[in-house]
Amino acid sequence: MNLDAFTRTSGEWLRGIGPDSDIVMSSRIRLARNLAQFPFINRCTESTLGEIEQLMRPIITNLPMQEKLSYLNVNKLSNLDRQFIVERQMISREHAERSGPRGVGLDNEENIGIMVNEEDHLRLQVLRSGFSLDECWDTINRIDDLLESEVTYAFSEEFGYLTACPTNVGTGIRVSVMLHLPALVITKEIQKVFQALQKINLAVRGLYGEGSQAMGDFYQISNQVTLGQTEHQLIDSIKEVVPNIISYERRVRNSLLKENRQGLHDQVSRAFGILSTAQTISSEETMHLLSSVRMGVNLGLIESLPISAVNEMFIFTQPAHLQKLQGGELESSERNAARANYLRQRISDASNSD
Amino acid sequence: MNLDAFTRTSGEWLRGIGPDSDIVMSSRIRLARNLAQFPFINRCTESTLGEIEQLMRPIITNLPMQEKLSYLNVNKLSNLDRQFIVERQMISREHAERSGPRGVGLDNEENIGIMVNEEDHLRLQVLRSGFSLDECWDTINRIDDLLESEVTYAFSEEFGYLTACPTNVGTGIRVSVMLHLPALVITKEIQKVFQALQKINLAVRGLYGEGSQAMGDFYQISNQVTLGQTEHQLIDSIKEVVPNIISYERRVRNSLLKENRQGLHDQVSRAFGILSTAQTISSEETMHLLSSVRMGVNLGLIESLPISAVNEMFIFTQPAHLQKLQGGELESSERNAARANYLRQRISDASNSD
Repeated sequence: MNLDAFTRTSGEWLRGIGPDSDIVMSSRIRLARNLAQFPFINRCTESTLGEIEQLMRPIITNLPMQEKLSYLNVNKLSNLDRQFIVERQMISREHAERSGPRGVGLDNEENIGIMVNEEDHLRLQVLRSGFSLDECWDTINRIDDLLESEVTYAFSEEFGYLTACPTNVGTGIRVSVMLHLPALVITKEIQKVFQALQKINLAVRGLYGEGSQAMGDFYQISNQVTLGQTEHQLIDSIKEVVPNIISYERRVRNSLLKENRQGLHDQVSRAFGILSTAQTISSEETMHLLSSVRMGVNLGLIESLPISAVNEMFIFTQPAHLQKLQGGELESSERNAARANYLRQRISDASNSD
Repeated sequence: MNLDAFTRTSGEWLRGIGPDSDIVMSSRIRLARNLAQFPFINRCTESTLGEIEQLMRPIITNLPMQEKLSYLNVNKLSNLDRQFIVERQMISREHAERSGPRGVGLDNEENIGIMVNEEDHLRLQVLRSGFSLDECWDTINRIDDLLESEVTYAFSEEFGYLTACPTNVGTGIRVSVMLHLPALVITKEIQKVFQALQKINLAVRGLYGEGSQAMGDFYQISNQVTLGQTEHQLIDSIKEVVPNIISYERRVRNSLLKENRQGLHDQVSRAFGILSTAQTISSEETMHLLSSVRMGVNLGLIESLPISAVNEMFIFTQPAHLQKLQGGELESSERNAARANYLRQRISDASNSD
């Protein structure tokens, strides 16, 4: 599998085509699973890790699905390539940073990822554009069943699925949605959302999961509890709360428009202008300006840019993406120039093909 | 003469076609003259002012020149129209703000202006694009001779031309060039220029003459002495010093390019981006950004914009111009929106016709 191909395409989850995709960038479910016959990863020798991969790789690539999965040996990738697939949300940062035999099974649409030898033997994830948790669940549940027909999972009648970290025991499920909440950030109402989510035990993280900052006004909402509830209950708890946040964000956007349409239009339009013309630009400024532009496109204040192009710009302006596009390592100042180049070109192409 | 026509054209002095017009926006000479048979303006009754105008108007409009001059009754104009022709540098702010019968003779190219009943009975001015003081002198000297063949100027063998204010006595000449010095401002070298000019008794003013701020990095350099030297000596003193300032500005531009081409290109390009997209913009920000763009165009960093369009944008974004373009009075916030509209349209037109 040639990673360069991914610099010319983008995942389904970036196309902005699912329900409520003006605010919900993507939905994601992941399952943590372990094989009964092996010790947990943190107790594995390198050779045991190798055995696990030897076992799982053919099972993953031969899963009886419409499209066969590809498999990447993550340990054989360069640091740049590992960072590249992290930015693409194909693997976790932790998986990139581990050592020893490990890999990931992927489909071409970038909806499915099956990590081998992450914190657990298996980490299954399904990503979808928009607010599409049911579709995520249908797919991941089917993959889980297909895998379970081939291997024996570590499972306890009392606790459910056993996992390396106790926070994942039980269902091993993490259900999350990536929300774009610029209006709640502008008005500082986002603090109220955080407080409400904390009370019902939901976690808030940034674009790249645990420990990452909320860049570009993206917030990932996910469950923290995995034990004592069914998968459906946990999915439902997210499905119940997210529509409230969506309508809160929409309400605040509308009142911003009502109170000062010109001011909002000006902010959004200037952000677009700077992204279209800068000759050098930091990642932080890019995310900040793209967030304004994303809201502007969704409010009809910017017409010449499809939302898929904006979503892609968030990901393709990340450091490893820029370096893959340029075909080599770049220092920080070179990346800022490459980022500005990419943005000017991408916006010009999108506007001209309009 | 319909002033609305001036909203669809612009003066020769804005076309950026004269020598060194990357740095010298325009050259200007004005002569202060008084008629022997009348008291100075500050001693005139309203009816005497009327007599002076009655006398001068037919003389001005019948001057034997290739193109006959038009004549505007400044006292019959609305405040908006008066401000409009001040912005266009056809008359002085003082002339606009006086009361009583007064006017101005103008040519279509906006090179020539003959004010009647300003501080002196007659104020002749000739404006030209670029560093063109000789052309200004040839024209104004010819007009002065033509007028002198029709009227008797107040003249003393001892003092020369007599003027209402002693600072103009003698030659009655003010020689000035409007310089665009953004690089000297960025590097703060402009202070050295000020000090050097002060030592040789040259004055530095802003875009709209005495008392106006140096907006858009424009500085008007002019003589302060009018007595004891000939017109040619006074013109030569400006002609000698200006090339030094021009080459100073060029040297600093080149070293800015050499030290940090990308940074300069970024600044210039973003300024262009903001002007192309803002939905509301103050006059101050406009002048500041246009100054960057003007330097960028002259350094070849921006290609799609002719310099004449940039020069015009400085003038057409002034309050009275915007209100004439919109066809009515506008409040400050409405002007900021109208200014942004004008800029977006003007840049889009200029880029498309490229």
